[in-house]
Formats: sequence, C-alpha cells, structure tokens
Amino acid sequence: MLLPVAVDVAARNPDWQAFVISALITSLCGLLLAVSCSGHLTEGLTIRQAFLLTGLAWLVLPAFGALPFLWLGISYTDAIFEAVSGFTTTGSTILTGLDGLPPGLLLWRSVLQWMGGVGIIVMALVLLPYLQVGGMQLFKTESSDQSEKVVARSADLVRLIALVYVGLTALCAVLYWITGMDTFDAVNHAMTTLSTGGYSTHDASFGYFTNPLTGWICIVFMLAGAFPFSILIQAIRGRPLLIWRDAQVRALVGMLAIISFAAAIYLGLTQRIGLHEALLRTAFNFTSIVTTTGFAFGDYAAWGAPIVGIALVLTFSGGCTGSTSGGIKMFRFIIFFGTLRNHLRMMVRAHRVVSTRYMGTQVTPDIAFSVLAFLVAYLGSVGIITLLLTFFGLDLLTAITGAATALGNVGPGLGDVIGPAGNFSSLPDDAKWVLSFAMLLGRLELFTVIVLLDPEFWSR
Amino acid sequence: MLLPVAVDVAARNPDWQAFVISALITSLCGLLLAVSCSGHLTEGLTIRQAFLLTGLAWLVLPAFGALPFLWLGISYTDAIFEAVSGFTTTGSTILTGLDGLPPGLLLWRSVLQWMGGVGIIVMALVLLPYLQVGGMQLFKTESSDQSEKVVARSADLVRLIALVYVGLTALCAVLYWITGMDTFDAVNHAMTTLSTGGYSTHDASFGYFTNPLTGWICIVFMLAGAFPFSILIQAIRGRPLLIWRDAQVRALVGMLAIISFAAAIYLGLTQRIGLHEALLRTAFNFTSIVTTTGFAFGDYAAWGAPIVGIALVLTFSGGCTGSTSGGIKMFRFIIFFGTLRNHLRMMVRAHRVVSTRYMGTQVTPDIAFSVLAFLVAYLGSVGIITLLLTFFGLDLLTAITGAATALGNVGPGLGDVIGPAGNFSSLPDDAKWVLSFAMLLGRLELFTVIVLLDPEFWSR
Repeated sequence: MLLPVAVDVAARNPDWQAFVISALITSLCGLLLAVSCSGHLTEGLTIRQAFLLTGLAWLVLPAFGALPFLWLGISYTDAIFEAVSGFTTTGSTILTGLDGLPPGLLLWRSVLQWMGGVGIIVMALVLLPYLQVGGMQLFKTESSDQSEKVVARSADLVRLIALVYVGLTALCAVLYWITGMDTFDAVNHAMTTLSTGGYSTHDASFGYFTNPLTGWICIVFMLAGAFPFSILIQAIRGRPLLIWRDAQVRALVGMLAIISFAAAIYLGLTQRIGLHEALLRTAFNFTSIVTTTGFAFGDYAAWGAPIVGIALVLTFSGGCTGSTSGGIKMFRFIIFFGTLRNHLRMMVRAHRVVSTRYMGTQVTPDIAFSVLAFLVAYLGSVGIITLLLTFFGLDLLTAITGAATALGNVGPGLGDVIGPAGNFSSLPDDAKWVLSFAMLLGRLELFTVIVLLDPEFWSR
Repeated sequence: MLLPVAVDVAARNPDWQAFVISALITSLCGLLLAVSCSGHLTEGLTIRQAFLLTGLAWLVLPAFGALPFLWLGISYTDAIFEAVSGFTTTGSTILTGLDGLPPGLLLWRSVLQWMGGVGIIVMALVLLPYLQVGGMQLFKTESSDQSEKVVARSADLVRLIALVYVGLTALCAVLYWITGMDTFDAVNHAMTTLSTGGYSTHDASFGYFTNPLTGWICIVFMLAGAFPFSILIQAIRGRPLLIWRDAQVRALVGMLAIISFAAAIYLGLTQRIGLHEALLRTAFNFTSIVTTTGFAFGDYAAWGAPIVGIALVLTFSGGCTGSTSGGIKMFRFIIFFGTLRNHLRMMVRAHRVVSTRYMGTQVTPDIAFSVLAFLVAYLGSVGIITLLLTFFGLDLLTAITGAATALGNVGPGLGDVIGPAGNFSSLPDDAKWVLSFAMLLGRLELFTVIVLLDPEFWSR
C-alpha cells in the first residue's frame, strides 16, 4: 500500500491519505494477529488446517485489499468485488473512466493482481499437489511434503519463484516502455500481464496502444504467465528446451496457434482487414482469454457469431497448472482425453487393459477420477452460478458468460452489459457478491472451497 | 406408415399416396436386406458389431421415416430433421401452422415418436448395460447377457415392455378424451406424451387445451414415460410401492416438486395469477423439460429471468435411465454427488476409505469413472455443438440452448428463434444437420457414437 502512497504524493494527489490509513489498519490487524497467535503452532499443519487456512487467507486478503477503495468513496460491495477480482487475477472491473482516475488507485489495482498472481503460483506448486485438489497430486515433487504435516521445506522454491516473477515483470515493463508506453503504463501493464490479471489503466484496455509490437510482446508475456512456473524456472536455469517438451505448453501454444490462424483468415475475409492485423487481433484476444488475462483489443463481440462462439468456449480453457492462470487448465484436458480414449477402447474390446500416462507418469484411477470430478464440478458450478445470477434478474447471456468468466478468472464476459467493451458496474449488488464468490471458488480450484461446506469437515 | 394412410383416406386427403409409396419403398428395401443377409448371422453379435448395429439402426430408421415428408414436399434437410427429431423423441419441429396440416402427416409425426420411445426403452434395458455405456453397467440384469455375444434372451422382457407401453398409452388417450380432447388429438398426444416426445397437433402445444385436468394428466404420464420401465413393469405386476423405493424416481419427483412449488410462488407474486394456475404452469413446463418431452404450456421464456434460468439448467437434467427420456438422467447425478462427497472426504482425512453404494449395489471405481466421463463428454459436447452452431451464424443464446435441447432430446430452446413460442424452421440448413447429429448423439448416450469415431474401432 506504500507504493500507491508514493505515486499519489508525487502526483500531488490527496488520495495518498486513503492508502496510509489502510496501511495502518492492515499493519495493526496483522500485528495483533501475529502477537496473539505466536508460538501456538508447534507441530505444523494438519490437512484440515491447511484447507481452512487456504480458504481463510483468500477471504482475508481481499478484505484488506478493499480498504483503500472504501476510503476513496467506492461502495462496500464494489470495493470487495474489485479487490477479489484483483487478488484472484480475474480483471473484471466496476470502475469506469479509468483514463481519468488518479495514479495511486490505478497502481493499487495492478499491485493487487501482481501479488495475487505470485500467491497462486506458490499455492499451486507447494500446497495444492499436497492437498490432492482436482488431480494436482500428479504434480507432487520433493517440495510437496508426503508426510501428514505441511512443513515449510519449500522456502528455496518460493524464493526462486519470486525471483523469476520479478525478473519477467521487469523485462516485460522495459519492453513495453521501449515500444511506446509511458513508464507508469508500462509498469502497471507488466504487472497485470505477468499475473494474467488484465486490469488496465485505460478504458480501451490494450486498444489504447497503437504499436503492433506492444501487442505481440503482451501475447508473449501473457503466455509466460500461463506456463508452468516450475518449467520457467528450469528454463531460466539453463534448460530452455524443457519448455517445449512440456505437454501442457505444447497443448496451449498449439491450440492457440491453430485457432488464431483460422479465425484470422475468417476475420480477414469478413472484415476486409490485412492478415497481420487480423492475426494480431485474434491471437491477442484468444491468448488473453485462454491465459485468463482478460485484456481486450477491440470489441471482439462485434466480429461475428463464430468469433463470439470461440471466445465463449475458450473462456473455459485456462492455461497450465502451476501458473497464474485460472480456468480448467491444459493438463486436465490432456488427462480427460487420454483416459476417455482408453475407457472407450476397453468398452469395445473387453479384455484389453490400457494404462494412461501423463509425461511418463502413470495416471492412476484415483488421479483420473479426481480430474474428471473437477471437470464436472467446474461445469456444474457454472450452471449453478448462472442460475443464481438469473435469480437476481440478469439476462441469460450475461448470466452464463458472467458465471464462466468469473469462475475461470478471465475478466470480460459477452453480451451488451459485461462484454469486452462493457463493464460490471451496472450489475445489481447481489449479482456482484455471487460473482465475487465465483472468482474465489475458481481461484481456489473449487475443491478447496467445497470441502469446507461439508458438515463432516467440521466434526472431530 | 399404413396408419396415416387410413387416416388420410378417411379424411379424403390425397396425402395417403405419399405414405403408400413410402411404405412400398421401405418394405422393398427391408425385404431385399432380409433376403440378402439371411443365414449369415450364426454366432450372435460381437461387442463391436453390437455398437455398429446400434449406430446404423438409428441412422437408417429416420432415413426411411423421412420418406413421407419428402413426398409431401418438405425439403430433404427439413424432412431428415423432423424424422430424427421424431425418432429420438426430441420434438423440435420445422413445421408451422400445425393446426391446418392434414391428419396423416400429424399422425405420422406422433407415430415416429411413439416408435422411437419404445425403441429407446428396449435399447436402454437390454443393450446399453451390456455395452457398459456411461455407467449403465450398473443396471445389468439377467437379461443383459454376460458372455461375449449379445444373444436375444430378452424376448420376454421386450414383450412386457411393449404391453405396458401400449397399455399406458391407451389409458392416457382415454383420460385425455374424457377431459375434453377430441379422439384424434387424444391419440396423438397420448403417443407423444408416453414417449416423452412432445410433438403436438397444435402450434400452441398444450396451451391449446383449456381444461386444467388435461394438464395434470399430461404431467402424470410424462413422468410415467420418464420412470425406469423395469420398475413400472414390476409395479403393474402387483408391487406398486417399488416405484417410490427407486432412487431415481425419488430424485426426479422430489426435485420437480420443490422447484415447481418455489417457482409457482415466484410466478404467483410477479404475474398476479392464482397459486393453482401458477403451479400448473410451472409443474407442467418443468416436468415437460426434465422428462425431455418438450410440450409448451404458455411462453415461459416471457415469465422472467429466474424462470428462464431454471428452464436452461433443467434442460440438462433428463429423467431416469431405462425410460424414454433423454438428457444426463438422475442416476448419474446421484452417483456423481455420492462419489464426489466421498472423494472430498478422503482428501481431507487421508486414511479414510469410504465406498459409494447405489441402491445397495457398490459403485466400483470403473462405474464411477464411466459416469463422470459421460458427464464431461455430455457437457463438452454441448460446448462443441454450440461452437459449430455459431459457425453457421446462430447467435450465442440460440446456439447454446439449441445445442442443449438437441443433445438432451428435449425440444424447445430459448431465445427469440427456437424458444417455446418459436420454431426451428428458420435456421440455416447446416445448423439443422448439426442439430440432427446432436439429437442422435444424445439419444445413443454419446459413447455409442463416439466409439465409432475412433480409428482403432475399425482395425482388426
């Protein structure tokens, strides 16, 4: 919170007071908690405590992150929505007229996303494999402890993640600056690009920047944010070819390349624009959706039914596990298609037994079940959230795409209200609460939240 | 095809010629096939042949069922769409001005659905459990053969099914007639009610009949069509209480009762109509959607966002396995929620092992996987079909609800075009072919079709 203070003071903007007060309140609460709880944790966490801690942390952080918004006169509901959308790196916003807003407020939104991004990477690499959430036990490494207690043997990994994350953000900011952004825009957009968050400092989002190179740089760094961070770390340590050997990366890049080219040809023919311009538009927007960033580059909702259809389906996709991106994620699709194929073949030839492998590791029936249960729970949650949103009066298209974009932590929906050219400000308050819950549910990979709803979780 | 001939001759309508010609062509092809293939099948069917035969049968039947439509001047695409929609008991129609159409044509549509309905019951009780499609191995009985060959030991069962099906249809027709339908309407609607098909002889569908009793009778017989037929047979043989002991029946009736009551209260308050009228409206339309019948009683798309949201979500539901209804079906929801709950509990307490049971039978990991794979494939197919429909220019809402209604064999979609007050006639031909495929895919429980798309299926 001290970063926005510095910026607002430099810009002679009185908003700095809001951030100072918020910082004081947050520090005070943190100090009180630390003092009152010090020494109580001697034996490490049980699994139940790890689940509870994860859920609570993602409730408490946005609550404090919303404080500056409150002091700046934003309503309680909107402040929580904006902070949750920030921390979960979703990027849906209730603010309008971004271009005229004070720099401190804009920077704070970017900082929220940047912190949320590194938070989810650490959680996905260290905690979730150990908690066996939605098939992520497949990614158990030495740093995911096998014993009953979650112990912090992962300090080295966390330090490496932070180093790579900061380094990539700095590189992205420099490249943005070289291709024409001013320093403030470059820093803000670098933070929201790497975190696949998607908050912008302009209403036109990336449509504000006219240099095509800026767009291509953004595509590269959105992808970096959606690659598995463990692979990025190994690549930067001198084994760059490992990136292309990763099954998730291949699936992600391959899919995006094919869809973007095909859609660019369609767009070039129907909108009468050059192929490079068309390819930039489709590659940018589809990469933005699939990596769950949510930057918009033009109003793709107006580019014809096929583009809209692709945008909707891609909203469910997500990038790779172990990255900042949300959604279903590539490894679950890979495991689903692999196990389904073998299942169908065993149906046809009863005595055949085939085992499915993921990058050399055998996919056990338990992992396969975990992945499929996640997929059903994910798609079912979109249905339930859609239903809740219609109860608060949203039309069907806004409700469906709002549910999908919130659960996938993408950002924009489709339709007149929350489409890429629209905004979440006009939604009823109830709907904003539902969407805030959906963003957290998606960010925590569903099961981490759902286990807390089971009465048996709370029994001794 | 001779039934429409009789009706048209009686009505002095020249259409009878179309049905005679179609009957001749069909008989000739059948005779040629029977003669050319007689004696070749000596050892029963292998599993592969059973899959292929099932798929081919459901391609060939609508092709011949479409012949009368062609002779009556309906385009090739529309004729196939209408016949597929009939045989799969979907009930989406490309015909308008039903009230003015000749009786033979109307009767033929009802007959298609009635035959399709009994066809799917026999398939679901005899064939699919043996083929292990989507968890249906859970319903293996003595009549589903365990050996390598599908042998027709099920003649008794088929005879009983036919008897109960004819009996219930006759009873339904008589009750319709008593409550005010004329004989022709009563027979037609009884056939399309029991088969959960939903073709009507009037554009206003059930809105044409003003007696509330007719509506309640329809609700009862739509439910009968969506109950497991094996339970109905046992009930009629003197054990009526068995119906209420069935887990699927309880889930179906319980869910419909709760949702209909809640929606009726909402509707009574917002539309200022009496509670009985409101309850009839919600119970009728929701039962119609959940049982995948597709009759409409008023334009529920105009009754507010919550009703529309419920209608969309219920489109995915379906009735019970072993009935004429389509969709996902109750037993898959029961198994999904049961296995998911136990999975989450095992995540939290690592050393706990819980087994899931369905009505006393243990749900093996293989069955659980089969059910979940079906659910993912089902929801994924809705996504793919939606995407294909947008490629042919359909707006997003028509595409999504069109895909869901076709795959679930429900009938009406939502939105201005294919909503309960609308019609499929104005869709582009390409979209009609996609929807016809989707209806067959859903009717054959997906996997029966998908296995045929695997190149390995065709290798020796």
